[in-house]
Amino acid sequence: MEFGKIIDGKEISSSVRQSVKEDVDKLIAQGLRAPCLAVILVGERKDSQTYVRNKKKTAADLGINSIDKILPESATQQEVIDIVRAFNNDSQIDGILVQLPLPSHINEETILNEIDISKDVDGFHPINIGKLSMRGRKPEFEPCTPKGCIELINRSGIEIEGKRAVVLGRSNIVGLPVAMMLNNRNATVTICHSKTQDLKERCKEADILVVAIGQAKLVKKDWIKPGAVVIDVGMNTDENGKLCGDVDYAEAKEVAGHITPVPGGVGPMTIAMLMKNTLTSAQKKLLNC
Amino acid sequence: MEFGKIIDGKEISSSVRQSVKEDVDKLIAQGLRAPCLAVILVGERKDSQTYVRNKKKTAADLGINSIDKILPESATQQEVIDIVRAFNNDSQIDGILVQLPLPSHINEETILNEIDISKDVDGFHPINIGKLSMRGRKPEFEPCTPKGCIELINRSGIEIEGKRAVVLGRSNIVGLPVAMMLNNRNATVTICHSKTQDLKERCKEADILVVAIGQAKLVKKDWIKPGAVVIDVGMNTDENGKLCGDVDYAEAKEVAGHITPVPGGVGPMTIAMLMKNTLTSAQKKLLNC
Repeated sequence: MEFGKIIDGKEISSSVRQSVKEDVDKLIAQGLRAPCLAVILVGERKDSQTYVRNKKKTAADLGINSIDKILPESATQQEVIDIVRAFNNDSQIDGILVQLPLPSHINEETILNEIDISKDVDGFHPINIGKLSMRGRKPEFEPCTPKGCIELINRSGIEIEGKRAVVLGRSNIVGLPVAMMLNNRNATVTICHSKTQDLKERCKEADILVVAIGQAKLVKKDWIKPGAVVIDVGMNTDENGKLCGDVDYAEAKEVAGHITPVPGGVGPMTIAMLMKNTLTSAQKKLLNC
Repeated sequence: MEFGKIIDGKEISSSVRQSVKEDVDKLIAQGLRAPCLAVILVGERKDSQTYVRNKKKTAADLGINSIDKILPESATQQEVIDIVRAFNNDSQIDGILVQLPLPSHINEETILNEIDISKDVDGFHPINIGKLSMRGRKPEFEPCTPKGCIELINRSGIEIEGKRAVVLGRSNIVGLPVAMMLNNRNATVTICHSKTQDLKERCKEADILVVAIGQAKLVKKDWIKPGAVVIDVGMNTDENGKLCGDVDYAEAKEVAGHITPVPGGVGPMTIAMLMKNTLTSAQKKLLNC
């Protein structure tokens, strides 16, 4: 049995970005236009501004166009809806991303439901989640962070089918969709959450453990089955103000077979998958595939 | 610990139907119209004809109007779509049900996606399944058989929150949605299927076991945790041609705390829940609630 093999999200995401760039170059070489991602940011949250800047920079690096619409905190819901609709109708735009969270006077569900599902590169529309959950249906796009988790597992040469997978957390953005994607790939999936009894015992049953519960270093060494694959989606700060995951990495890596560090694990995958979804959307439109 | 308590689906469904009838009577007493269910049947399958007849009879018993559209096996997909659209636009119709399976030349997904989600009383539209799966979203309607399973558990006085629930089967009609509904109610849910290893051991972990896998008497006495609640969605015929479930009832009831028989368990709940969904749809429209 192998122990402590690090799943290098920086390297894997770089490889994904490289392959996206090559496919973008192919579109251009065929005389077609570059993919285009439209980003909507409402308000002045520093973290949201950073995320948007990073997305635009990555897009530029890969030859993907991006346009943004920055609105003041005071923007009305209708103004945001109008922009989404204009982007829906613009045939030059392949993906629409509304940076979350939105100011509290704007209903997130209402806005996300407005996005044309053929441009929902975040994969958050209920139709996309419904199709992701159902047998024999295919969503337009798989949500970026869960898709990144699966990519990390696949690229580490780990078989998913027949494994026991435990997902800690059931958010719409990570926990629930990653559980559905593991189920689609024939793992036997258990979904754990704040009301789960004996959380430690449940985690210990996992061959593949995905943790997305937002509690710094919750998962300890003795929560992990020896040799298990541990995917840590957490992004917290520890007692010293240092970035850390939901898993106590220093001790967990002694027991886990494969494990993602924080930072440098799942984090870099989300943007890479967003770029991949934007490319896929452009390819569907431009190549009719 | 209690053993072998029978969950009586006939009695519980009768009580649900009674309460639907009372609410229909209230609508009429207020001078409003009766709820109306529209049923579309394509082809001449004997089992489908029986299901449709039963649904219409139950509706009539409860004061719910029903109309049907019977099409020959040779009907085109466009003809079915046109009928669905006409029903969508008819303000007198509260629920639309397309009897499945459809003939093989008609795409089931295409047809089901045409149904206005505010009339999707079967709850099979991907938007409904998406909202059922997501936190903080509410589907227009919960699918009838899974809703019936939850009702049986609730009316037996069994707490779901914090329990381990295992669902055997992941179909769009039963397994997947019932897993999501148990998760919504704060059970810790494991979804098992044909690729699950050690199926017996997984079942034995369940405080609540829902079996919907379509194999006669698969689940034996030693697959069940003593005292567990066993909900059997199966409808098979045994070696003597007798109707039986996916659970070996005769021996399972010695170990289970509560168990549904087949027939007389989940079976009668599906139609009762369809009537309840049709009533709810009418109430939303007529009472603006």
